[in-house]
This record gives sequence, structure tokens and C-alpha cells, in this order.
Amino acid sequence: MNTQLTIGVAGLGRLGSLYVDYLQYQIPGANVVAVTDADGDLASKIAKNHNIAHAFTDHREMLELKEMDAVVIVSPTSSHRDIVVDAAAKGKIIFCEKPLSISLDDAAEMKAAVEKAGVFFHMGFMRRFDRGYSAAKTKILNGEIGEPIVFKASSRDPYRPSLEYADPKKSGGLLLDMGIHDFDLARWFMGDVVEVYTIGDVLAFPEMKEIHDIDNAMVSMTFESGTIGTVDMSRSGIYGYDIRTEILGTKGTIQIGYLRETPITVLKKEGVSHDTVPFFMERFEQSYVIQLKDFVEKALEQKEPSVTIEDGERALLLGHAATHSQHKKSLVTIDNKAMEYTLKS
Amino acid sequence: MNTQLTIGVAGLGRLGSLYVDYLQYQIPGANVVAVTDADGDLASKIAKNHNIAHAFTDHREMLELKEMDAVVIVSPTSSHRDIVVDAAAKGKIIFCEKPLSISLDDAAEMKAAVEKAGVFFHMGFMRRFDRGYSAAKTKILNGEIGEPIVFKASSRDPYRPSLEYADPKKSGGLLLDMGIHDFDLARWFMGDVVEVYTIGDVLAFPEMKEIHDIDNAMVSMTFESGTIGTVDMSRSGIYGYDIRTEILGTKGTIQIGYLRETPITVLKKEGVSHDTVPFFMERFEQSYVIQLKDFVEKALEQKEPSVTIEDGERALLLGHAATHSQHKKSLVTIDNKAMEYTLKS
Amino acid sequence: MNTQLTIGVAGLGRLGSLYVDYLQYQIPGANVVAVTDADGDLASKIAKNHNIAHAFTDHREMLELKEMDAVVIVSPTSSHRDIVVDAAAKGKIIFCEKPLSISLDDAAEMKAAVEKAGVFFHMGFMRRFDRGYSAAKTKILNGEIGEPIVFKASSRDPYRPSLEYADPKKSGGLLLDMGIHDFDLARWFMGDVVEVYTIGDVLAFPEMKEIHDIDNAMVSMTFESGTIGTVDMSRSGIYGYDIRTEILGTKGTIQIGYLRETPITVLKKEGVSHDTVPFFMERFEQSYVIQLKDFVEKALEQKEPSVTIEDGERALLLGHAATHSQHKKSLVTIDNKAMEYTLKS
Amino acid sequence: MNTQLTIGVAGLGRLGSLYVDYLQYQIPGANVVAVTDADGDLASKIAKNHNIAHAFTDHREMLELKEMDAVVIVSPTSSHRDIVVDAAAKGKIIFCEKPLSISLDDAAEMKAAVEKAGVFFHMGFMRRFDRGYSAAKTKILNGEIGEPIVFKASSRDPYRPSLEYADPKKSGGLLLDMGIHDFDLARWFMGDVVEVYTIGDVLAFPEMKEIHDIDNAMVSMTFESGTIGTVDMSRSGIYGYDIRTEILGTKGTIQIGYLRETPITVLKKEGVSHDTVPFFMERFEQSYVIQLKDFVEKALEQKEPSVTIEDGERALLLGHAATHSQHKKSLVTIDNKAMEYTLKS
Repeated sequence: MNTQLTIGVAGLGRLGSLYVDYLQYQIPGANVVAVTDADGDLASKIAKNHNIAHAFTDHREMLELKEMDAVVIVSPTSSHRDIVVDAAAKGKIIFCEKPLSISLDDAAEMKAAVEKAGVFFHMGFMRRFDRGYSAAKTKILNGEIGEPIVFKASSRDPYRPSLEYADPKKSGGLLLDMGIHDFDLARWFMGDVVEVYTIGDVLAFPEMKEIHDIDNAMVSMTFESGTIGTVDMSRSGIYGYDIRTEILGTKGTIQIGYLRETPITVLKKEGVSHDTVPFFMERFEQSYVIQLKDFVEKALEQKEPSVTIEDGERALLLGHAATHSQHKKSLVTIDNKAMEYTLKS
Repeated sequence: MNTQLTIGVAGLGRLGSLYVDYLQYQIPGANVVAVTDADGDLASKIAKNHNIAHAFTDHREMLELKEMDAVVIVSPTSSHRDIVVDAAAKGKIIFCEKPLSISLDDAAEMKAAVEKAGVFFHMGFMRRFDRGYSAAKTKILNGEIGEPIVFKASSRDPYRPSLEYADPKKSGGLLLDMGIHDFDLARWFMGDVVEVYTIGDVLAFPEMKEIHDIDNAMVSMTFESGTIGTVDMSRSGIYGYDIRTEILGTKGTIQIGYLRETPITVLKKEGVSHDTVPFFMERFEQSYVIQLKDFVEKALEQKEPSVTIEDGERALLLGHAATHSQHKKSLVTIDNKAMEYTLKS
Repeated sequence: MNTQLTIGVAGLGRLGSLYVDYLQYQIPGANVVAVTDADGDLASKIAKNHNIAHAFTDHREMLELKEMDAVVIVSPTSSHRDIVVDAAAKGKIIFCEKPLSISLDDAAEMKAAVEKAGVFFHMGFMRRFDRGYSAAKTKILNGEIGEPIVFKASSRDPYRPSLEYADPKKSGGLLLDMGIHDFDLARWFMGDVVEVYTIGDVLAFPEMKEIHDIDNAMVSMTFESGTIGTVDMSRSGIYGYDIRTEILGTKGTIQIGYLRETPITVLKKEGVSHDTVPFFMERFEQSYVIQLKDFVEKALEQKEPSVTIEDGERALLLGHAATHSQHKKSLVTIDNKAMEYTLKS
Repeated sequence: MNTQLTIGVAGLGRLGSLYVDYLQYQIPGANVVAVTDADGDLASKIAKNHNIAHAFTDHREMLELKEMDAVVIVSPTSSHRDIVVDAAAKGKIIFCEKPLSISLDDAAEMKAAVEKAGVFFHMGFMRRFDRGYSAAKTKILNGEIGEPIVFKASSRDPYRPSLEYADPKKSGGLLLDMGIHDFDLARWFMGDVVEVYTIGDVLAFPEMKEIHDIDNAMVSMTFESGTIGTVDMSRSGIYGYDIRTEILGTKGTIQIGYLRETPITVLKKEGVSHDTVPFFMERFEQSYVIQLKDFVEKALEQKEPSVTIEDGERALLLGHAATHSQHKKSLVTIDNKAMEYTLKS
């Protein structure tokens, strides 16, 4: 077994730059040997600052590096398909940030390429690596709450993203962009979803109508096992970044999440108060690092990845089905094997 | 204006007996002058212990009392229709514990009788009088969270009721029996519901199948205003009686509810822990008293009742619609004026 | 055994009036047959409203009633000595609200009278009957936190009392008036105190200097067993009525208390907030009722009282010792048998 | 202004090794150019793994490095005096981990050396850099709670340290070893202490008597301003690492601290529970990093250090005074200018 995984990072935006940091300094088994970004100056600068040998503007050049075992993809979603397909063809180990893609066809193509090449592929869903979510999973596997029978999740962003970012053509829309995390968690805790019903509308930000997307939604899910669940999503959390999940079991219940950022409480005539979690990096930074560590370790040890490309594909399918339900104001059934969804007749 | 409302209490079960206590001793404006119960010995004993002049076994005899202004109905649901119709005919002021009835036809008959007689009628939904719920309502009316756009409620009982009690023929089934409170709250905070979808099943107690009812459910609601909501209900709360509601507004969010009964926390190697609320009387006793006070005051002051028979009827309609959706596994639309619900085509 | 205790209530101020209510309507074994108050009109009015046969302006007249088993004393502290001594002489069962007296000499005289007469005497310390405190006591007796070794208590009033009320000549000063509850709890949980040191000053309300009292204090205590404790008291809680106690044991810790009055949380951009407990009746009303029930039951069953006159006397002694320490800025040792305290040499 | 501070780290124990990591990878302005440790192999290994040019076994050799601006001292307390004095003589910028020293004479010598050399010196008290504590400080400076008048702190370790570690000859004893943090916070929030009284004993671990130290203590403090405070310390926190502070002001109160490690709550029949903070690295790791960043920035910008050697000396003085009070069972007065404490006559 190698003791170091040599890595190229594709995409050096805000998250990509942090990934370089995490990989280079906080994960002993990782060694970043190359970076690539459309912005060549940025790539060169980051390479220099982190003692990284190679900087590219085209991922294909990076993939030529023989000494590079793996590629970590943090580039815009629209570029995922090409990089994954090309990396698989070169036999590289792959980590791909969520979402796998926007289109299901792209996802299918990527999955086929990965399976054909037989390469290790880790789908980036960092919430699974949050201390709260992973502790909950362990407790449930240990039978602490009996059989899980009801899944409830809530995701709220503290403010509306730019209309450019939120545009469904790029983001997939609310139910894909925000929902993909909750859909993955739903599958992780409860199994595949076979029927979905979404209600949602523009309730907080009228300007969302311009981009033909909604800002609040609620998704009902029936799982293959017959158990049930719901996810509500909001672009108008206003008070903070609020991610909560509750799993009701036959012997108990687990709640995951928290709302306080600074460990301080102020008591005044007007009441008792504390602050809230600002946004996702404050809430999940540690989870990103833990996930990358897990990826590096599993790849080095030639074990199965903790999150598979199929996980990425099925969460995407669920996101599409939920979106379709909201558009058609109708129930939608899902065939997880055929990777298809249809209006319920 | 009279300073005292003379009252007859119909039904002396657990709740009925407490109502006699509350009315007689904790509400200055109330004076219980009669009680009635099928169990004559019980009626006589309670009358004697509380210095109440009259005890009956038939509500019609009680309604003959000229000196009795009002009747408080806490008898079994199946008796509500007759008592309400008879009391209205006698021009009595009426308080009727929830649910108004099981059947919508009965409800329509009761409403017609009350309207024809023009009597004051208070529909018993004690949660509206809970300090948390009433404070939330006030804050929302004051604009503190902007426009309410998402309603979420959760109701969990700590254990399965007897199959006899839970039998849908008597109780109306999970969605009526437990749901009626949440449906009333949903209407109170958000307005009428026009579309509903319910998923639910026997997930915790297989024996529920014997009575053809479910033990866990999740109801999605679209309100007339276009806003959205969900209620999840469980007979298998196990850990305690857990009633929570959250209302997301455009400027903030309000959460109502609590889980701790005794103000004590224990910190040990195994963790930090506290107890939970055992059941509804521990949670809502105060609300029952506040509601009765409100009823007595409003009746004496000849004001409008805080909760109307129409509130009772529409919550019932919503319960039926939600139940129908679950049976048919389909969306159901509601016509609140016609008091009808139909499968969505 | 009698099934009803016939009671006369002495003192009909705010708390006294409530006691009449509690005894008459919430405690089956109690029967209030007389009341007395310097304000004769008040006494007559309350007697009439509660179906109480006798109303007096002089406690001695009330004590002449043969049909009265017990007297509940809720009159001003300055009257406690006479009523207790007179009631004991008449062989009456006695409940006396805290503090027993202001002067230790009075307390000694009362105790001598009670002991001589051999009458049942319950010292009113309602916190012991709070659900939190009594649950904590039970858990500790059950060994759940091992041996208790550190006692911490905090008492904060939401605002300064009137200077007239707070005047040490009447109230005994901060350390007696507020501290007596915490001193009783300290003794109840940990045993007698043998050494005390108090720091305190006028830190919030300069006008307290006019009456020669302080508004904030901190008392260190060494218990007879060698364990240690502290109580801090404040007249300037400002944000609410805040009563907390923490007991550290060798195997765990128990915390008692809470800060929220209404079960509602508001989440806004400015943070997450809730209200606080306004004052002592909101916090401890239930405890008053439970205590009176306990008094009535124990008296009827001829058992030992749950709180004795010695408990009242020793908490008072501790209050005096703590006050002396603050005045002399010095350590004070306590002889609990001799009922004396002295500056430590 | 330089953009990089070249640093030598003295002491490579658990904390020292982490400091190398933090400085090298998480603080852009820092550049570790040398390390020293009595264990030469360890020094060489760490130097190699972190691309550090020099490794030494003697701090004096390291101090000879011309290209090294600063020394960060994380070595055993007994070595602090020599390294500080030597580093000052060489004109080095100094960061010294708490406590400054055990003996007051050593502290005075170090302070004299630092002042004579005029070098920048940062005293390591990481709690000041915790998000909770620094937010509290800011709020108080902004007047949010009015004038701070009462200071309360509680420090509990989850288990007894080894007798070797705890030995007062090395550690200074409970009141210095654990208390130094709380004493620094007390001074930071409230100013200097002029009178102290400590009670404490061996209450949990009888074996502590072997090393002539105590395991639980409570310290009362009177500040120069007349305000008051208390700190309780325990080696027997058992349930977790529990660090809490509360500051009562004339207009409100601030509480700092938390008890939960994993963001998960489990609800079962036995109650609602969560875990606790295991130990100080889980609670304060971020604070260590923030403190080092502050040190590097202030040193590069040639500003005043955030925590001075005088802060280190006076917290030490307070620790000695509190210890003396406990030994002599007597009040102790402190002269902060003369750096002396005496029994109160």
C-alpha cells in the first residue's frame, strides 16, 4: 500500500482553494502535486504558495501526469461530466463534489465511464461526515432507536442567492441545488424513495419568478420499505443557516443539528438570546476535511468508497422527480433501477 | 351584564371532572349548577362534593333548568350532536369539547341548529389558549416574523392507545383523533387548506391493522393563500408527549413547544439528560383552564366566541380529507364553502 | 385518623389570599374554617367568598375556635412569634411561612413553645417542594451522583424591592430575606454549615445605602462534613427571576432551574431568543400548593413534618452569620447546637 | 513591515507539536524555521516532516539563529524562566505558554529581563481568544450589560490527572494549575483582585493527600473596584470538561460556555440526552490557533501584545494568594503593585 496519495485538484474557487489547504496540510496521506483552473494566474499562484509542482488551465493536461494518482473535482457542475469521463479513461482515482451533474444523462454517462474503467470514485456528500450525522448513523445501526420509520429534514439558507447562481439552468433549481443534500441523507438513513410529492412556490422573493424557480418547498417521500419522510427547504431562512434532521424510530428519536454559533448567551430584560450559524462553511467546514480524509484513506487502502457514484446518481434522480412533481402539481413515482420517474396515474 | 354564568356540565369522565373543578374554583365568573352523566352515582357524588345543586343522568333533563345559562359538553364524541342540537333548541350558551363530531353530516346538523337558534357557541380547541401558541399568534399578528409562509407541526403520543379507543369508528382514526388539533392550528395560523396529501402506514404497532388504522402519518397541505405546510403524527412517540409547531415567516421564525417536564438536568459520564413531558394533561392543563375562562368571559360579555363552530367543522373537514387522501393514496382537494373534498383528477 | 384538617389562616395579604384558595379548593384534606387579618373588611370578604364560617381581626380570637385543628401563618414576619407562641399554647397544629422570625431570640422562644406543647409544626420553605428540587433530592438519596461535595446556588430578583420592604429592620437584609431559601437548601442537601464568609456591597442601586443594606453578595460555606458551597444573591437580576442550584457529586452533577416562561422561541436575523421567568409566583406557585398538601397530609397522618422548626431556626442562624461576616469583613464560625456564631479568631 | 515572522518553537510535547502545525499551515504570517526539544530524535523528525530547516536539543543553540525573529515557548513550565531570559537577552520576540512560571521570583526575573530588553512578549492565555470569551468581552466593552458587578467562573476537569502531573511542586497545585485561566479571565473582565478567600479540600480522590494537594476548591474574590466574584474548580468533573463563566452586569448578564460536543440529541423513554465536551483540546483548539494568529500579527505590526507578561505575573500572584488562603484557612490581601500577598490581620 502506498502511504501517500498524489492528487490533482480541478477547480480553485472558494471551496477548491480550501480543499487544496485541507489536503496539503491537514491530511497526512494526501500530497497535492497539481492544480488546474480556467484562471491560469490563480492556478499558478496557489501552486506556488502551497509548494505544488504543476499548475494547468486545462484538466486534460493535468490528467496526463503519470505521478498523479487521483483527481479531486471541485470545478463548476457543468464541467463535472468531462473531467470525470476523462479521468476515468486515464484510470485515475476520482473524488467529485456534489452534485454529480445537473442532467441525468450526464450522470449515466459518467457512471458508465467509471464502471468501465473500474476506478475508485467517491461522491462528495459532506453531511454524511458531519459529527452529528455520522454519530446518528452509528447509533441507528446499533439499534438505539429501533427501526427508523419517519425521516424529517429541514434546510434553510440565510438569504437568497443571486439570480444568476440560482438559475435552474445552472443550479438545477431549489429542489436539486438545496435538496440534493437532504435527498442523499434520506436515502442514507432510510433507503430508496419510490414516491414523491412536492409543494412549493415563490413565497418570499417575487423576483424568483424571473428565473422560473421557487423559494420554498416541502417534499413528501415514501420509501421502498414503506416508511415515510419529509424535507422542507427554504431560501428565506433569514435568521441563519439552519440544517436539522430528525429520525423517529420505534424505540426512540434522534435529532441532528444546532442553531448557535458563538458559545455565549445574553440575558436582558428583553429576553435571553444567542446568535445563529451564519452559513454552510461555519456549519460544515470540519465535515469537508473529514470527508477528504476518508476519501484518501479508503483510496490508499483500496477499500470501497464511503459514498458511491450510484449514491450521487440516485440523489439526483430524486431531485429531478421532486422537481417534476412540483411542476406538474402531481404525485411522481420513481424506478430506482431504471433511473426513471413518472407521473402517478 | 351578568357577573356569573350558571353552567351545567355534561359528561364527567376524567376531563369532565376536571372541568367541574376548574369552573367551580378557578374561574370566578363561573357557577356550576348542574352536572349530568350516564353514571348517576358519579353525577351525584361530584355534585355533592362541589356544592352543585343538580345531578342528572339525561342531558335533556338538565337542559330544562331555567336557572342554567350554559352547557359545557365533555361527554363522548358520539353524544355531541344530540346535546348540541337540544341545547341550541333551548337557547343555551354552548361550549363543546373537540372534536365537534366524527361525521360531517352531524357537524352540519349541529351548525345549522346553532345558527338557527343564534346561541353563543365555543368550540373547544385548547391549544389555541396555551401560553406558547397564544404568544406566537400575538407576535405574528404584530408582524414580528413578517408574512407566515411555511407551517410545520408535529404531534406524538407517548404510547399506543387501546385498540378500542383508537378504533376509527369511534375515534375517526389517527388523522382525525390526533390531527384535529394540528389542523385547527394550521387554519388558525395560515387560513383554510385547499389541497392535502397524506402518506402514512402501520409502521410501529402491527396490531393497528386489526382496526384498519395507521400509527404514523405525514400530511402535506397547500393553503388558500398559496403558502404550504406539513403535519406529522405518531402514535409511537415512545419518549414522551411531543407537540411542536414551527412557523416560518418572511422576516423570522417562531417555534412553539418543549420537551422537559422537571426543571432538572443530570450530568454524568454517559451524558447530559433530562426527562420529557409525560402526556397531554401535563402539557396542556393550564390551557384548558384559560380556555374555559375565555369562554365564560366572552359569553358573559356577549362577545364573539374565540373559536367558532365553523372552526370545528372545517378542522373536521380537513381531517376527513387527509384521511381520504391516505386511503386513496392520492391528492385531495377541499372546497371549504361547500364543505366537500374530492380526489384531485 | 381524621380525613379533614380544619384550618385557620392568619394573614390575608397576596400570599395569604392565595393560600386560602389553595387550601379550600385544591387540597381535598383541607377545610378552612376561619381567617384573620388586621383588615377586618378583607377578612370578612374573603370568608364570604370562600364559604368560610369565621373572620377575625385578632389571631387570639381565632385560636379560641375549638373546631379549628390548625393555623397557617402567612402574616407579616413581625407577627410570627406571637401567633406561634399563642397557637402552641392552644395545642394547635402550626404551619409558619418563612422566615420563622428576624431575631434569633424570637426563634428560640418559638421553638421552646412548640417543643413544650409538643405540637406539629411545619416550617414553610416551598422550594423543597418544587418538582426540580424534590427530584434532585430523590436522585441524590438514590446515589445517582455519588456523594455530594460542592453546592452552588444563585438567586436573582428581577428588580429592587421598595426601600421600605427591603429595610433590614423589617426584612433582615439581603442575606436573610433572599438568602434564607438558599441557606435552607444548602442545609437540606449538604448538612449544617460551620464556617461562612460573605462578600457583598451596594453595586447596582446606590439608594440601598440609605437603608444600610447591600444589593449583591456572595457567600462561601464550609459544611460540617468538610464539603463546600457558595450562594450568590442579587437584587439586580434585571432580566428575570433566576433561581438555580447545582450540586456536584463524586459520580455526577445535578442542575436545577430554568429561565424560560413561555414555550416559544423566536428566530430572527438578530438571533434566537426567548423570554424569562418574571418572578417567584410564576416560578414557584405549584410548590406552594404541593407544600400545603404535604403539610395537611402529614398533620392528618400524625407523621413528622417534612420541614421542622429547627430547620427554620438554623437557616435563620446561617443568615445572621452570613450577614455578620459581611458587616465585619471577616470569617464567621457557627455553632449549630448552641445556636451561636462568632468571628473566627 | 515584514510579512513573515520567522519562528523557533521550544518544546515539542503534545501541545508543542500542534503549535508547529498551526504556525506552519494555518497562519500565513508565520514561518517556523527551527524547533528544539530535549528529545533530539523527535525534534529532527518534526523538522523533517514540516520542512523546518533546523532542529536542536538546546534552546540556546536555537537562539543563536540570526534568521529567527521569535521564539514560541511550549516547553515544561520549569524551563520557562531560562528560555525567556535567554531569548530576551538575544532580542527575540517571545510567546510563552501559561503559566509564566511556578515561582513568583522567577516571574519577576523574567519580567525584568523582558523589560530591560524591550522585546515584544505575549503571555499565552488562550481562553481570551475563544469565540465565546472574546464576544463577551466585546459586548461588555460596548456596554451591553452595563457595569459588570459579579463574576462567576467554574472549571471542571473530567478526571484526575496523574499524581505525578498534579504534584504541586511541578504544577503549583490545583489553584495554580487549573485556576490560572480563571484568574486571568477574572482580571480581564473585572480588574485586579485585592482580597481572596479559598475553601477547598480532598473531597473526591483520597489519594490526592499523598501529594498534599486538594481536588475541589472555591475561591471568593473582591476586586479593586469593589465588585465581587467566585471561581470553583474541580478535578472531579466526571461528566466532561466543563468551563463556564457568567458575568452579571447592571443591565444584563452574559453566560459563556457549553456542554455538548456532538450536535445530536437522543430522545428515549429514559429521557432526552446528549454527550459532553471530552477535554480541553476539543473545547479550545480553535482558541489556540486564533491566539497564535494574534501573536504573529501583533508582532509583525509592532503593536502592543494582547496579553502581557504583567498579566501572566498577576494571575500567578492571584494563584499563590488563593493557595495561601486555602492553606492558612484565612483571608488573604493582595498588593498588585508590590506583587505581594499577606494574611489579613
